[in-house]
Amino acid sequence: MIIVMAPHSTEDELKNVIDKIEEKGLGVHLSKGASRTIVGVIGDKAEIGKLEMQHLSGVEKTVRITEKYKLVSREFKKNNTIVNVDGVEIGGSKPVVMAGPCAVESMEQLMESAEAVASAGAQFLRGGAFKPRTSPYDFQGLAEEGLKMLRTAADANGLKVVTEVVDQRSIETVARYADVLQIGARNMQNFQLLKEVGRAGRPVMLKRGLCATIKEWLNAAEYIMSEGCDDVIFCERGIRTYETYTRNTLDLSAVAAIKELSHLPIIVDPSHGTGRRSMVRPMAMAAIAAGADGLIIEVHPHPEVALSDGEQSLTPADFRSVMEDVNKLAAMLRGEADA
Amino acid sequence: MIIVMAPHSTEDELKNVIDKIEEKGLGVHLSKGASRTIVGVIGDKAEIGKLEMQHLSGVEKTVRITEKYKLVSREFKKNNTIVNVDGVEIGGSKPVVMAGPCAVESMEQLMESAEAVASAGAQFLRGGAFKPRTSPYDFQGLAEEGLKMLRTAADANGLKVVTEVVDQRSIETVARYADVLQIGARNMQNFQLLKEVGRAGRPVMLKRGLCATIKEWLNAAEYIMSEGCDDVIFCERGIRTYETYTRNTLDLSAVAAIKELSHLPIIVDPSHGTGRRSMVRPMAMAAIAAGADGLIIEVHPHPEVALSDGEQSLTPADFRSVMEDVNKLAAMLRGEADA
Amino acid sequence: MIIVMAPHSTEDELKNVIDKIEEKGLGVHLSKGASRTIVGVIGDKAEIGKLEMQHLSGVEKTVRITEKYKLVSREFKKNNTIVNVDGVEIGGSKPVVMAGPCAVESMEQLMESAEAVASAGAQFLRGGAFKPRTSPYDFQGLAEEGLKMLRTAADANGLKVVTEVVDQRSIETVARYADVLQIGARNMQNFQLLKEVGRAGRPVMLKRGLCATIKEWLNAAEYIMSEGCDDVIFCERGIRTYETYTRNTLDLSAVAAIKELSHLPIIVDPSHGTGRRSMVRPMAMAAIAAGADGLIIEVHPHPEVALSDGEQSLTPADFRSVMEDVNKLAAMLRGEADA
Amino acid sequence: MIIVMAPHSTEDELKNVIDKIEEKGLGVHLSKGASRTIVGVIGDKAEIGKLEMQHLSGVEKTVRITEKYKLVSREFKKNNTIVNVDGVEIGGSKPVVMAGPCAVESMEQLMESAEAVASAGAQFLRGGAFKPRTSPYDFQGLAEEGLKMLRTAADANGLKVVTEVVDQRSIETVARYADVLQIGARNMQNFQLLKEVGRAGRPVMLKRGLCATIKEWLNAAEYIMSEGCDDVIFCERGIRTYETYTRNTLDLSAVAAIKELSHLPIIVDPSHGTGRRSMVRPMAMAAIAAGADGLIIEVHPHPEVALSDGEQSLTPADFRSVMEDVNKLAAMLRGEADA
Repeated sequence: MIIVMAPHSTEDELKNVIDKIEEKGLGVHLSKGASRTIVGVIGDKAEIGKLEMQHLSGVEKTVRITEKYKLVSREFKKNNTIVNVDGVEIGGSKPVVMAGPCAVESMEQLMESAEAVASAGAQFLRGGAFKPRTSPYDFQGLAEEGLKMLRTAADANGLKVVTEVVDQRSIETVARYADVLQIGARNMQNFQLLKEVGRAGRPVMLKRGLCATIKEWLNAAEYIMSEGCDDVIFCERGIRTYETYTRNTLDLSAVAAIKELSHLPIIVDPSHGTGRRSMVRPMAMAAIAAGADGLIIEVHPHPEVALSDGEQSLTPADFRSVMEDVNKLAAMLRGEADA
Repeated sequence: MIIVMAPHSTEDELKNVIDKIEEKGLGVHLSKGASRTIVGVIGDKAEIGKLEMQHLSGVEKTVRITEKYKLVSREFKKNNTIVNVDGVEIGGSKPVVMAGPCAVESMEQLMESAEAVASAGAQFLRGGAFKPRTSPYDFQGLAEEGLKMLRTAADANGLKVVTEVVDQRSIETVARYADVLQIGARNMQNFQLLKEVGRAGRPVMLKRGLCATIKEWLNAAEYIMSEGCDDVIFCERGIRTYETYTRNTLDLSAVAAIKELSHLPIIVDPSHGTGRRSMVRPMAMAAIAAGADGLIIEVHPHPEVALSDGEQSLTPADFRSVMEDVNKLAAMLRGEADA
Repeated sequence: MIIVMAPHSTEDELKNVIDKIEEKGLGVHLSKGASRTIVGVIGDKAEIGKLEMQHLSGVEKTVRITEKYKLVSREFKKNNTIVNVDGVEIGGSKPVVMAGPCAVESMEQLMESAEAVASAGAQFLRGGAFKPRTSPYDFQGLAEEGLKMLRTAADANGLKVVTEVVDQRSIETVARYADVLQIGARNMQNFQLLKEVGRAGRPVMLKRGLCATIKEWLNAAEYIMSEGCDDVIFCERGIRTYETYTRNTLDLSAVAAIKELSHLPIIVDPSHGTGRRSMVRPMAMAAIAAGADGLIIEVHPHPEVALSDGEQSLTPADFRSVMEDVNKLAAMLRGEADA
Repeated sequence: MIIVMAPHSTEDELKNVIDKIEEKGLGVHLSKGASRTIVGVIGDKAEIGKLEMQHLSGVEKTVRITEKYKLVSREFKKNNTIVNVDGVEIGGSKPVVMAGPCAVESMEQLMESAEAVASAGAQFLRGGAFKPRTSPYDFQGLAEEGLKMLRTAADANGLKVVTEVVDQRSIETVARYADVLQIGARNMQNFQLLKEVGRAGRPVMLKRGLCATIKEWLNAAEYIMSEGCDDVIFCERGIRTYETYTRNTLDLSAVAAIKELSHLPIIVDPSHGTGRRSMVRPMAMAAIAAGADGLIIEVHPHPEVALSDGEQSLTPADFRSVMEDVNKLAAMLRGEADA
């Protein structure tokens, strides 16, 4: 059971609610967000079934939820969540597009990328300053210097910044420069990182783990929300299968599944999802048609010299063309005449 | 190397070509279709590299192909193949839709299904008369009786018939009633069946195996084409992964991959691909946006009493609604004003 | 429910049993083996639950089985089945070893192989005369000529023959030369082939499909047994996963699973299971330690010139050495002093 | 290229080596362990090929290694590494066994477990004080209180302690109580954690990620070793596949693969690997026969009331019986007469 406290409920009212729960031998999981306090009840199901809390002072509503994930579930919140990043909506009526290079390499590369993706209609600049790499000897990113470049290039082009946080110790630093904090696929079940990023006061984009089930993904988002963060964005980026023609197998049915099970927005990464430049356009279109709230696409001014992921990065010209197709499709799906 | 004989080349010219190849110690794979004869050269690559055949009498062209699959490859034929089934085009500008119940259960069920799918705009009636089931004790289909019902219901509603052939011994029987012969996922590498179905004189729809790679799938189609069948249609129906929320993982990047590597059409099965009624619409839309040439969808007049796959079958009303969305999307993608 | 008829029960008694079942609106699946007739009851579970058949004349016993697979299950038969191939036991106290080349290439190659594996202690000669190959242009095997060579080489060295049948039409031919008929991984759910091979009067070795679950594998064996064949041998040969270092992922827990769920013997193929010569010994040892009833191992007198699977074939010398280790291990597991 | 500095080489000698590398425009990765300093050369392969460093003062040897992982590779170190934990050898001639409950629940439960596993012959007590759980509402462990109990119970029974570290911030705390630090499957590519644990001065047991390839696993170990830790132990615990009968698919060929590619020891976890109590014994035996250096097994005094993983935990009596079989097998493999 989840107990939602009223916006202006007092500490005494909260304490009273908690006492009532603990009297029954049940446990409490407290989630204090900027705008809401939520009390999760943990313990014996039969005992929870007998609880009557809705009449207590300061309680707005109680919700009985059968799944382990509570705050992320559609049962908890019927309407779609729209994450508002300083005026840019994720999960609203228009798809959001995040674009840029895999890794931040230099100010020049980044500025060129930012101009290109902004002029083509993207709202976010993406780029890795801390790169989680399979080998310790691969390029690991420019760290805080890279973050500064991201902020500068984004600001100069009216873009927001999304970038990955790989480490509990650098959350604060990243949050100083980024608008949205990304959790990468390899950290999807790094539960300590999830908890701390949930307290950072920024929206969080949670990439699906390489072999995470839909349910595990929802539970990972629950870790973030249970620390008080209301703004979680899912990102499908392909799962690992036996197929080697593509880098990963992009699972677009995950878009439909998340829409059924959760109120949170979901975007799709056709670049990592396929690993092939030629497949980005068809998979971007398919993602939008499946109901995705946006896309994250790798764009590099000179893919042939990229330090990582060159073979899956679009040129600015290709990106512009993909954006045109995507925008036409999105307009048609919204039922607009000019589709 | 592949040698394409001219349409009116003679047997002597063919014999001369073969002699020249065998003189060099190389082998020959002969593919005689209704309209073309093709000579595949097999053996030592260096020796093949030295062959000069294009000037021989009766030779239309020679093609050097690096992949193991030859006739199915884009290298062999640049333009998209359009499979024409008595006027219904698969691979043309409009998506083709095949719909109907999983299994043929009765004349009444089938007639109701056929009327529903025809009036909603489908061109093909689907339905299994021979059912490959995991257990020998599950319903195995109505066999030839079922085929007759399919033909009758299709004819009464202006539809074509697509149905599965599970057995070399019944190819002829199925071909008597069906317009397109389907090879099911479990038989994708039943090479004897592939060869014999390639000689049956009917277009063949080849479903992807449960864990087949793209390359294995192309090679399976090569078995069919190398027996003289020019009209092969791929059908992506989901692959087996660790995910259990969906019945299979629908791999829409396979649509883009097939379009790159082959000239043959590909359709998508969102019913088996997801195993969930609620996911058929978003995945059907995504498939068309990814570039698929059509859809195969399970529709049952009364899903709740279906002998198999009821949980993934659409009702006729739902199917009609999905068709409307799909047709709007397809029109938009064709660039039509009325999208 | 399964009804086992007594050894000398009459046709009238059988007819009476069937009539009683059909009176209740239930269906019958009849399995007539050389030594036993078994009546499977199919249909509504509640109705089956009410059946009382054990007192009828000619009935030896009735067994209520919850799983879909019946005859293969441990519930149906408590004791391990020992398949006796002219005196060679599969599933008895000593492991059986089948060895030889992937494909039959020539009489000389085969004779050399047979001598080597016989002298090292193998009981079966393996080798493919019909090869199911991914591409139609790969070497497809020597067909009946290859079968004759297998028989000749085996007889000359006191070995039995196990070889694959890929086609309903050639079952009879293969059965003329082979002692055990093998169903390959790609045909594990070729249900027509399973049914017909179940009527061939020979023991059948059923390889696990590339991505078959344990339950699907048991049901595939049920297809064979339900046609009257009592002697089915499972063969674990690795499943398809994301891992590419090995050709397949050898699933030795399948050995333990089959031993729990079924009374039938199971052997292991470390050659295909790993695809690497260097891994055959450790995986052979592990298979025996896990409880496998035997091994099937690729051995080629000259692996470097093998037409297929050379990189996973042992030399005769390596094979002899593996056999010594395996025999020591098996003796130790039997509790013999000379271990 | 890897440059191993001599044991008593000076800082000046090291500086000279680094200067020579950087003069060529190449990068340096420095790894300073307790007993050795290693200089990795990073950058353009052609340029590295031209380096001649072996004659420089203070250089013990140089090793050219083609794989990305260097320090973990067999190319770098021919002989097996034996990790010595206060006299208990991992990777020596006798298998090491780590046993105990999944989670530390109480002093009583732990003491009972420790007595049981010690008397049966285990050398390590295992147990989770910090539990990485799929849901934030599941039992998360007793934290430092649990660590204290582990130490107390281990010391009272002459056992070493192995336990998981889930968080950079708690490495120091865990290292205060544990002899071996475990990195769990979900953190195998938590690169920050790997780096920091590599500097903790304790041996590290690295579990394989749920869908990690062998190569990714080796590279993860390289992260740890490149921070100066020489004592890494691999632990195969099953990978995620489509099969649902077992909790994971235990990949014993990974044991053989690691033995080929690395000098480091590897142990096997048949409890998580199968998720079924009945399969622990056959898989433990198979692991040892495949060449594993030890086992980690879940044992709970009362599996039916365990807070987690009860269905895969052995009772003390079962564990004792498994240990007897495993010891007999290991003695036989060592060639001892009393096998």
